[in-house]
Amino acid sequence: MLDFTVSHRDGEARRGLLRLRHGEVHTPIFMPVGTYGAVKGMSPSALEEVGAQIILGNTFHLWLRPGTEVIEKFGGLHGFNGWNGPILTDSGGFQVWSLAALRNISEEGVRFASPINGDRLFLTPETSMQIQTALNADVVMIFDECTPYEIKGRIIEKDEAAASMQRSLRWARRSKSAFEALNNNNALFGIVQGGMHEDLRLESAQALDDIGFHGYAIGGLSVGEPKADMQRVLAFTAPRLAPHKPRYLMGVGTPEDVVEGVHQGVDMFDCVMPTRNARNGSLFTGRGDLRLRNARYRDDSSAIDPECRCYCCRNFSRAYVHHLQRVDEMLGAQLATIHNLHFYLDIMRQMREAIEAGCFQRWREDFLKKRAEGV
Amino acid sequence: MLDFTVSHRDGEARRGLLRLRHGEVHTPIFMPVGTYGAVKGMSPSALEEVGAQIILGNTFHLWLRPGTEVIEKFGGLHGFNGWNGPILTDSGGFQVWSLAALRNISEEGVRFASPINGDRLFLTPETSMQIQTALNADVVMIFDECTPYEIKGRIIEKDEAAASMQRSLRWARRSKSAFEALNNNNALFGIVQGGMHEDLRLESAQALDDIGFHGYAIGGLSVGEPKADMQRVLAFTAPRLAPHKPRYLMGVGTPEDVVEGVHQGVDMFDCVMPTRNARNGSLFTGRGDLRLRNARYRDDSSAIDPECRCYCCRNFSRAYVHHLQRVDEMLGAQLATIHNLHFYLDIMRQMREAIEAGCFQRWREDFLKKRAEGV
Repeated sequence: MLDFTVSHRDGEARRGLLRLRHGEVHTPIFMPVGTYGAVKGMSPSALEEVGAQIILGNTFHLWLRPGTEVIEKFGGLHGFNGWNGPILTDSGGFQVWSLAALRNISEEGVRFASPINGDRLFLTPETSMQIQTALNADVVMIFDECTPYEIKGRIIEKDEAAASMQRSLRWARRSKSAFEALNNNNALFGIVQGGMHEDLRLESAQALDDIGFHGYAIGGLSVGEPKADMQRVLAFTAPRLAPHKPRYLMGVGTPEDVVEGVHQGVDMFDCVMPTRNARNGSLFTGRGDLRLRNARYRDDSSAIDPECRCYCCRNFSRAYVHHLQRVDEMLGAQLATIHNLHFYLDIMRQMREAIEAGCFQRWREDFLKKRAEGV
Repeated sequence: MLDFTVSHRDGEARRGLLRLRHGEVHTPIFMPVGTYGAVKGMSPSALEEVGAQIILGNTFHLWLRPGTEVIEKFGGLHGFNGWNGPILTDSGGFQVWSLAALRNISEEGVRFASPINGDRLFLTPETSMQIQTALNADVVMIFDECTPYEIKGRIIEKDEAAASMQRSLRWARRSKSAFEALNNNNALFGIVQGGMHEDLRLESAQALDDIGFHGYAIGGLSVGEPKADMQRVLAFTAPRLAPHKPRYLMGVGTPEDVVEGVHQGVDMFDCVMPTRNARNGSLFTGRGDLRLRNARYRDDSSAIDPECRCYCCRNFSRAYVHHLQRVDEMLGAQLATIHNLHFYLDIMRQMREAIEAGCFQRWREDFLKKRAEGV
């Protein structure tokens, strides 16, 4: 239930089309994060208006609330939340891993106490596949272990990263078996781990390719490592993933990170940054980031980004959105979210056009230069 | 800058057209409340979609934040908040009155400490007119004193209600003088006070009519009095207001209250109830009110109101909005607000049509009966 074609290449950057059960996705693409089945502050029609093609749902959160049995009654997440386009769900692995002291990882899976009501829960590759199948996600992610960069201030050893990566490979095999046993006819993506080590990353990528998935994600980046390490591992790993399958950089990142990812050949991205930062008053513009709650914007009649064509920038001033956020009006979060998501989705659109036109490098240099110049 | 025509009468109920600087308003109408220059959770385009024709802004709140000087820079509230239709502003009197122990009322005006930063402020009929002129509201309200129903558990005496009403009349004259001195060419409404006493209400109404305003509001209701007193004073007062001018019942109320108001000849209403209740999970339907957070709606696939045509009811289930509100997703407040405002504005539309068709009484009985039957 997945078809992916790369129509243009410009350096490592790729322009592609991903066909999923609920529709087509033009890549490279950014996927807004809808943790609890809703992108915060955004109705499905607002998401369409900012150019969203595919959104992300969080298996861990939806499993706990409202619970799989409720969403199953609606035939899956699409029937429940009213978003008719493609949905990708994570495996829940990253969230249980993030519970830190509250969870216990064994070969079988992860035991943890529900942060909602304290219930003792157990998440395994098999249960993750069951939940994601019930959610009827267009793209299902394998259940893996996110290898940490450091533990209590100590950077982990290579043998620890290797052991973690090997466990993720075993879980990848169990995920695929469970996915097939469930007769799930959506897409299943593998996740490359291996910490900051090129040889481990390569081993992980090759082993996953041997198992065989519909696409490949790069996990375990943006977990506290220096930016240079992230870029080194990304630049090494992305071009080594199967060339005819979609590549997904998980949980990354700033606009610059996303542009760098495309530059290295990544097709798909997700991150809470545009939505979370919007609510905190941090707005992205083509001339750098803007701390909207700063008093300097109190009577600023210009748009958040004068070059932006989103609903917020076409209709409202910095002063108005500044005011709304200062008095805690939720419309302030909504308008800022519209702007930030539009910003991310619009740079993806610009990159798709630049790759088609064969001028991605010029676009990239121009974008990075203007962003660095500041507002 | 105001023209009002009554095209149809059905009993005391009236169907009218109010022409204001920023557009026409078909009456009877409900005005959503936009305290800080935004109806909570609603963009101007969302307001248009639910059928809003005129919205309310709060002088007191906007004076404190962002401050008159900011809004003046945008030529008024319309330029600031992007709502291009008519706006009515209250005078700030009710809000400073609500500060209770924190304010000091004298013949000159009301002294109080800013709840934002403690600044000592002084609001008078003259300053209220200055602020509302700076906001460039289509309908300006006189600065009056809201006569309380009781003070510290003691129902106020008639002579206290009379003295308060007389002061409001003196402030009404000062309001009109100041409004004219400012060359404000919008509309100015007087406010009838007089507590629970018919003769005081009549005296107030006649004295205001002698001064001469573009419309008349009924103030001092829904301030803690028994429902029967409210209905008695409303039924007495509304039909005695100038027949060729718009009548506005301030801060009222439930759907039943609004229908009763129309039945008594009122043309305009405002209340925070639809928006506030939406955020608290109380949803209005044609079959009574629905406590959406109740566990019974956890997997209920029907719309909030199966007969409603709002964006929320066309696209989402009770189960989904229930889920959003239970996990504190702001989209839950947004969708509920869309529904509740649509509900209020749609019953106004239905009443306008019923009055035109001469079947308002049958509509009213049917509406009240279905609402009482429950969900």
